[in-house]
Amino acid sequence: MTGRCPFSSRRGFLAAATGLVAAAGSATVARAAATEPLPAIEPFWGEHQGGIATPAQQHVYFLAFDLRATKREEVAGLMRTWTEAAARMTAGDTAGVLGTDTARPGADSGDAIGLPPARLTITFGFGPGLFVKDDKDRYGLAALRPEALPDLPLFNGDQLVEARTGGDICIQACADDPQVAFHAARQLARLSYGAAEIRWAQSGFNPAAAPGETPRNLMGFKDGTNNPTPKDAARFAKVVWAGEEGPAWMRGGSYLVARRIRIALEHWDRTEVDFQEEVVGRRKYSGAPIGGGHEFDTPDLAAADKDGNPTIAENAHIRLAAPANNDGAQILRRGFAYNDGVNLTAERWPPWRQGMEFDAGLFFLAYQRDPRAGFIKIYDSMSKLDAMNQFATHVGSGLFACPPGAQPGEYVGQALLGGATG
Amino acid sequence: MTGRCPFSSRRGFLAAATGLVAAAGSATVARAAATEPLPAIEPFWGEHQGGIATPAQQHVYFLAFDLRATKREEVAGLMRTWTEAAARMTAGDTAGVLGTDTARPGADSGDAIGLPPARLTITFGFGPGLFVKDDKDRYGLAALRPEALPDLPLFNGDQLVEARTGGDICIQACADDPQVAFHAARQLARLSYGAAEIRWAQSGFNPAAAPGETPRNLMGFKDGTNNPTPKDAARFAKVVWAGEEGPAWMRGGSYLVARRIRIALEHWDRTEVDFQEEVVGRRKYSGAPIGGGHEFDTPDLAAADKDGNPTIAENAHIRLAAPANNDGAQILRRGFAYNDGVNLTAERWPPWRQGMEFDAGLFFLAYQRDPRAGFIKIYDSMSKLDAMNQFATHVGSGLFACPPGAQPGEYVGQALLGGATG
Repeated sequence: MTGRCPFSSRRGFLAAATGLVAAAGSATVARAAATEPLPAIEPFWGEHQGGIATPAQQHVYFLAFDLRATKREEVAGLMRTWTEAAARMTAGDTAGVLGTDTARPGADSGDAIGLPPARLTITFGFGPGLFVKDDKDRYGLAALRPEALPDLPLFNGDQLVEARTGGDICIQACADDPQVAFHAARQLARLSYGAAEIRWAQSGFNPAAAPGETPRNLMGFKDGTNNPTPKDAARFAKVVWAGEEGPAWMRGGSYLVARRIRIALEHWDRTEVDFQEEVVGRRKYSGAPIGGGHEFDTPDLAAADKDGNPTIAENAHIRLAAPANNDGAQILRRGFAYNDGVNLTAERWPPWRQGMEFDAGLFFLAYQRDPRAGFIKIYDSMSKLDAMNQFATHVGSGLFACPPGAQPGEYVGQALLGGATG
Repeated sequence: MTGRCPFSSRRGFLAAATGLVAAAGSATVARAAATEPLPAIEPFWGEHQGGIATPAQQHVYFLAFDLRATKREEVAGLMRTWTEAAARMTAGDTAGVLGTDTARPGADSGDAIGLPPARLTITFGFGPGLFVKDDKDRYGLAALRPEALPDLPLFNGDQLVEARTGGDICIQACADDPQVAFHAARQLARLSYGAAEIRWAQSGFNPAAAPGETPRNLMGFKDGTNNPTPKDAARFAKVVWAGEEGPAWMRGGSYLVARRIRIALEHWDRTEVDFQEEVVGRRKYSGAPIGGGHEFDTPDLAAADKDGNPTIAENAHIRLAAPANNDGAQILRRGFAYNDGVNLTAERWPPWRQGMEFDAGLFFLAYQRDPRAGFIKIYDSMSKLDAMNQFATHVGSGLFACPPGAQPGEYVGQALLGGATG
């Protein structure tokens, strides 16, 4: 084990952590005040789709669909219908006009009536299957498939479950209220009948961290410290938005990688804090990189102890994820914790028991300009080397091209789907 | 079909509903203001356990355990350990003192550090298996089993899944932040190693309804209009708290019925609003009982139309649930929506397809003074007659005796478990 820091500085971190806990009561008030400037309604129409640069909401409901449509026009019709409903719902309205004819099914299930818009965003993405499926060019779109939308390779350690992987189209519905997010996904699923079928679903959440504080993930570490931020517009644009390098219909869009990562929380909780910090490369309580003093200090990947051992371990998570270790590659992580109850698990470590363990972890969602230079590049080495892999198993996966936003009267994906059928 | 109301009044309801939606933006602000008076910290110690009379939080994480302990003292030790950790966590602290020895696993997983207490409550309950299991009196407690804690009968239509049913001990962790609720349950599960094993788990959520407004369930109807409220202290006490009629160790406690009720949302959404209203016995948009004008109007169960047909159908949900229909029986419903993604379902109605459908519905939690005069009585007839049963399937179940609260220095259940072993 490498990179132990002196006991004295560790206590300082613990004292800071205790302070955070003790101040929790006042933090509630501060949080309420700080969330007020966030708009209740996130814009739907615009250059980019919502839900990418949007400050992360507290809840996600994600749906991946298999297309059953046989013609491109049907897909276009679905996207038009979905766009109209999404525009209404993100504004806090029902998916369709309720009308007065109660002798018919409602145009909306009604469970979000009276709830605030809750910053709902709906983000659509196209999977490889829209372009080519079973070697067939179903919709005459194969030639428009971006090179940045390959079939994801099978990474080292992948344990992908078919029923949680892939999809021709996806919907990411995010809101600060779980019922608002689920309501939106459910209405869109209903509107897809005949054209698409649900393939898999995943819900997730983020904690309500105090203002200015990086939220902690289920492993107890601050997560997202070095994420790109729209405040640095040039860097953000370079990392996130597709440009002129690909097909015109994707300019202003972004590529989404989704990974359902189950984490062996029971094991993680039994490991020493020192060990956890070496795995991550950061101090647990302060969030500082090992060898640094504060959360936002730049990790010193070159630092070594007196014996020449690296201060941040060679297999530490933040070293392997660092842009400096990946030719500058970076992605926008917009993930959520997931928590799907328990299921029967045979433990691979002591005490070797078999029993019900949490089916929980990270619903990793990441946006990027080009996955080949983003997630695929970064995770290729991480999947082989990251010390965290002992505790994390990728069990679901998807790659989607999220087109740019639409203007009123248009629909999302129109530049791709709106042409004459070939 | 019975009980149609004139078109003109229906429009009024729709107008009201539209108004709600349109006012959603301002509702956000009002809601923020209204939640401020709620304390950040719910009291843990006291006459009653928290999480029963406590205004419902937005999230629940529920765990049922099988006991592996072989002696009563071990169960008592578990409850003491759990009580101490629960008292700390509900106050916003870690489950145990983190300490400075980072060469050991932390006394807390750390994922709630920096988060507000979020009104966390932790409610413990004892299932029948604590008293008698496989005909064995494992802990010398059989004589102390309350008559109000029978084995639940199998109700008409029950489709209970073994892996979602029963349990010797349960924990209901509720908070306004999902990470806070899950964190609490996870720490308690870890502290149970050796003494108990997780049997099943269920998470759930409630929407953030505007102040003074009854939240809607996933079926789109206002739910909880006639729930007992602590504001009517005498009625509440009579319905909820166990008194002198049972064993002394349960006085001030309450009995919890948990039911995981899957709802066929896809089918429900395809039914006419008129039909839905007849099933429920209320107007969808206003929440008014059929024949009444406002949500809080008392349903007129005796009203009939000119042909003598009852205005509220004989098999309407609210008729069968009404105290007037059950010799005055009443329960405190404290349920949550649940949403566990999708799974393969073979539809029983048109269009007869097989496919992925939402595994979502109601995690019904209800507290009462005596289940024999509460849930068991009420649901016995509802399970046979309720029109809603076409859409709702009970797939998980549990009955638990939740003892009274503890005072500092005591542990929850001490009056039951603290005696000398027989």
